[in-house]
Amino acid sequence: MGSNKDKTSPKEPGRFAYEGLERLLHERSRLSILSSLAAHPQGLVFNDLKMLCALTDGNLSRQIQILQESGFVEVWKSVHRKRPQTLCRLSASGRKKFLEYIAELERVVQDVSGAGVGASAADAQATTSAVKRLLAT
Amino acid sequence: MGSNKDKTSPKEPGRFAYEGLERLLHERSRLSILSSLAAHPQGLVFNDLKMLCALTDGNLSRQIQILQESGFVEVWKSVHRKRPQTLCRLSASGRKKFLEYIAELERVVQDVSGAGVGASAADAQATTSAVKRLLAT
Repeated sequence: MGSNKDKTSPKEPGRFAYEGLERLLHERSRLSILSSLAAHPQGLVFNDLKMLCALTDGNLSRQIQILQESGFVEVWKSVHRKRPQTLCRLSASGRKKFLEYIAELERVVQDVSGAGVGASAADAQATTSAVKRLLAT
Repeated sequence: MGSNKDKTSPKEPGRFAYEGLERLLHERSRLSILSSLAAHPQGLVFNDLKMLCALTDGNLSRQIQILQESGFVEVWKSVHRKRPQTLCRLSASGRKKFLEYIAELERVVQDVSGAGVGASAADAQATTSAVKRLLAT
């Protein structure tokens, strides 16, 4: 996945275009939400997600709705101690697409890390390998 | 630099807020431009930058102006074979701030890579170390 891209020359047209950085996922508050959910595969209730992402109620609701409508996030409702609860979880396809986005983000990090004096190519490759393993599972 | 952040618990308030993802740098076309320039410390002429980032003339001009006004990018003019040339280069402070942004981007990658089955913590740490070394130089 994306292995051809890794071999492109630094002078190739569009080499730094990063077309995989989809606006839907790249926007910071949505990136926050998706990363939180990726780190909590069992899902997170609305208030925990709000706290972890440091978002307002309104903004979190809006972003969750966008992510739900585009199929990235599942929203579950329940009642706990007589209070309505909302649970958010990454969907299976959402998780897959988000990991692909993260692999592109890593390419950016790698391009920049690899450009500096003293950064070893082996170091820059290591996290990429970790994400590739995740994508393969 | 940012080493305290690495030790925060995954349940800490704002743990996934990623406040270092400044809008100015995070927007995709500007991220493209900055990454290209980071990979070419000697600078790039306008047309090469346009080709590498797959941007239109208008968009590239606008983004360069924004990056120049905020001190990230230096713009140099010259005449080459009777044609005006524009050279863009990362400023020293722009390079430093951009590497800090990249370190935050890496934290996102690390948070997500570390969350999956099979990703070793050592792998996820390796690229971070590379960026930290760059920041220290």
